[in-house]
Amino acid sequence: MSGPAAPLYLDDLASGQRFETGERALTEAEIIAFARQWDPQYFHTDPEAARASPYDGLIASGFHTLLTAFVLSLETDVWRAASMGSPGMAEIAWLRPVRPGDRLRCVFEVLSVTPSRSRPDRGRAEIAYQVLNQAGERVMRYRATHILRRRPEEG
Amino acid sequence: MSGPAAPLYLDDLASGQRFETGERALTEAEIIAFARQWDPQYFHTDPEAARASPYDGLIASGFHTLLTAFVLSLETDVWRAASMGSPGMAEIAWLRPVRPGDRLRCVFEVLSVTPSRSRPDRGRAEIAYQVLNQAGERVMRYRATHILRRRPEEG
Repeated sequence: MSGPAAPLYLDDLASGQRFETGERALTEAEIIAFARQWDPQYFHTDPEAARASPYDGLIASGFHTLLTAFVLSLETDVWRAASMGSPGMAEIAWLRPVRPGDRLRCVFEVLSVTPSRSRPDRGRAEIAYQVLNQAGERVMRYRATHILRRRPEEG
Repeated sequence: MSGPAAPLYLDDLASGQRFETGERALTEAEIIAFARQWDPQYFHTDPEAARASPYDGLIASGFHTLLTAFVLSLETDVWRAASMGSPGMAEIAWLRPVRPGDRLRCVFEVLSVTPSRSRPDRGRAEIAYQVLNQAGERVMRYRATHILRRRPEEG
């Protein structure tokens, strides 16, 4: 399933729903630029030195992978319109290196939907994300909690 | 305790050690620029619209807070020299909004140190991070697993 045609609210999501994002490639220049700013470790910033690293070549910062997945999931519009932010994430795992030229996409599944008891305008959706490369291999997974607006009652 | 004088290896870390980073302020321009690229939600990118949001004003993307804390912790040199990357993070919680002008710093504590049984050159350190603002309030916490090189035997 791809993104929705109309803005979704918490009420439109249900446990078990699955969504798929578009795809984005990470170039060597992007990997290095990101890492210089946010994760300046040599195996993310220096292709030459990275060849002598445990990764045998340059790899993307795990944060670069995470943020790419996050933007791709935002762009599906599944939860963008209803989003009121997030209290947290869990179980972030980097499973395989992401290398220059790799094309990432994301599949995500709604784990639970819980209306707030104290605030009737919102609730929580727990979503499990998997990030895949162009070979269909899982490179990362994480879970996120989203605070989402409920559909306003018609008055 | 601040950062070390000499490069550290896994062997130099022990459960219970605490470290403290320097401080970094997030300007409104930085918050907006980061969010436009990596978290384009209106309460991170549009000061005017953000005033009508649940946050009553612009707040930094939680990822901006996370990456700022990560860079600050890297800059202590506690684990930079020994770092061989990370398999994952856990229990990321955003506890309070971060607003333009807030100054962030980070305290972190070693939870456990586990030499690898299969690879004698490395091991895992589990570290708990807390991100504080200029008032000493906790704005975020997370745990990270670091793969760190062991001190080479002298030959």
